[in-house]
Amino acid sequence: MTAFFDSSRKLRIAVVGTGAIGSYHGAKLAASGHDVRFLLRSGLETVRSQGFTVHSTTDTPVIRLPRARVFGSTEEIGPVDWVLIAVKTTANAALEKLIPPLLHDGTTLVTMQNGLGNEAFLAERFGVERVMGALCFVGVNRIAPGVVHSFGRGTISVGEYEGPPRARTEALAQAFRDTGMEATVVDNLLTERWRKELWNVPFNGLAIAAGDMTCDLILADPGLMELVRGLMRELLAIAEARGHAIPDSYIDFQLSRTRPLGAYKPSSLLDYRAGRPVEVESIWGEPVREARQVGVQAGRLEALYYLLQRLTAARVAQKNSAAR
Amino acid sequence: MTAFFDSSRKLRIAVVGTGAIGSYHGAKLAASGHDVRFLLRSGLETVRSQGFTVHSTTDTPVIRLPRARVFGSTEEIGPVDWVLIAVKTTANAALEKLIPPLLHDGTTLVTMQNGLGNEAFLAERFGVERVMGALCFVGVNRIAPGVVHSFGRGTISVGEYEGPPRARTEALAQAFRDTGMEATVVDNLLTERWRKELWNVPFNGLAIAAGDMTCDLILADPGLMELVRGLMRELLAIAEARGHAIPDSYIDFQLSRTRPLGAYKPSSLLDYRAGRPVEVESIWGEPVREARQVGVQAGRLEALYYLLQRLTAARVAQKNSAAR
Repeated sequence: MTAFFDSSRKLRIAVVGTGAIGSYHGAKLAASGHDVRFLLRSGLETVRSQGFTVHSTTDTPVIRLPRARVFGSTEEIGPVDWVLIAVKTTANAALEKLIPPLLHDGTTLVTMQNGLGNEAFLAERFGVERVMGALCFVGVNRIAPGVVHSFGRGTISVGEYEGPPRARTEALAQAFRDTGMEATVVDNLLTERWRKELWNVPFNGLAIAAGDMTCDLILADPGLMELVRGLMRELLAIAEARGHAIPDSYIDFQLSRTRPLGAYKPSSLLDYRAGRPVEVESIWGEPVREARQVGVQAGRLEALYYLLQRLTAARVAQKNSAAR
Repeated sequence: MTAFFDSSRKLRIAVVGTGAIGSYHGAKLAASGHDVRFLLRSGLETVRSQGFTVHSTTDTPVIRLPRARVFGSTEEIGPVDWVLIAVKTTANAALEKLIPPLLHDGTTLVTMQNGLGNEAFLAERFGVERVMGALCFVGVNRIAPGVVHSFGRGTISVGEYEGPPRARTEALAQAFRDTGMEATVVDNLLTERWRKELWNVPFNGLAIAAGDMTCDLILADPGLMELVRGLMRELLAIAEARGHAIPDSYIDFQLSRTRPLGAYKPSSLLDYRAGRPVEVESIWGEPVREARQVGVQAGRLEALYYLLQRLTAARVAQKNSAAR
């Protein structure tokens, strides 16, 4: 088994979900010599003929990948060693049919998606042994099929869904490091997911529910800041009841990290504005359900969840009817 | 003292706040023979020359009050026996200067305003002995200065802020009955205020925060209905801690009362749409503060409060900048 995780070995990787995150990470791995096969729906012919280009404010040089291996179905891709899953969580149901053609006995599934519950979703369907997760910290926009702009050097944290890190965990981190990214192996992936929720829940949520707010506007509103802190406290209580001890001081750390972002628009706000589905269930719905399971009061979180369900559904419906 | 509350006696009444509620109730009392003096800002000359007209879908005949006593200041009105207070609670601060010229030793102040805290506001400034409250259940719109449309026969509940009903409580109820309204004396005014909060908080609040929702749309959304019930449970817990026992079954009663309203637009939504101030503090802010005082968890209420603070302030600012 050790030979399999030799970091000089060429990895066979499928990227399922070739949006900004999937395109960026897949293109970087392909550029560093791995066999990366991308699943595409829209823009398949464009990317087949032109490949991928990653423009960057900091990476040099720009990544040019003129001949990318792109496919319209996972049957055409066939079995691989690693599956990087980067579809929006609103499309998770589609994974039940997309994943099986990619599997051999040793295939590892890595969810790079937002929020909670994605690892559990995969474990239930494909076996807990296969599942890893990655938290991606990079500003990326897909501006056209195969064309991605990235802001800042990407960092990524990878971890096992169950149990401590092992050889494969380190092998994946090393593969990302070899692309020039900063990559960390985390001992407890789900604790990291809860830490990220502490930011995503209030800032992505209030950006929509408080009426088209950028981060600086939220930080400048004393009432909303009470609510941000209240939401964070609820999340800490749920996480703690789930065995993820995160110190209260992490609240101030998350807020101090947010100040330099200025008029940043959280990604859910961009989705909402564009009338695209927002990842309401994985970011807000899952912690609400976890709170109920452990009997923790989380009224602020529940209120925000139900408001976002309605607001985002109405926005998508409005956009669809305008498009008709 | 009994003679003073003889129901055949002509009452001297000042109406402070001649919007829909003040115009409607004042005009009815004036039409039944009382000395009613209205404080007006805008439309003073119009109402002075044309008086009041109350159109109604059910009252017959329409009330015509061609010669109304209207004034531009409470100094001109002078001392009265009763002050009916119907300004929006967002203008409460102005009452500190408006009320004193209306007072003699026996003047009673009756707040007909929405939400919580209005009786306490008056009691602190003018003495608890003077304060009564009225809950108005009538659909009224002021469509022009002096012109009001009413939907349905008005009912009103009146009560003392402190202590049980007394002669004056009954006298005021009788004065309203004499106008053809249904009027009730309530033993515990504040309990009735909490009962009304149980409707106002979720329906006025979600109509705005969930994105321009009428009552029927709220009732049809399972997530929002979870939130409605959660908000009502929080309010019941706060009310109970404050000594106002309201049975849980009142939740279902309030919901059953709402279904026949169909696509009704709660008044706060109308204010919000028009860019007028919304009574955020008296409807949502006061119960949040009460919850803190009694140590009751009310996260849903708090979330809704802070969201509404921001949404309504932004809407007013938007309207003001558009008007420039």
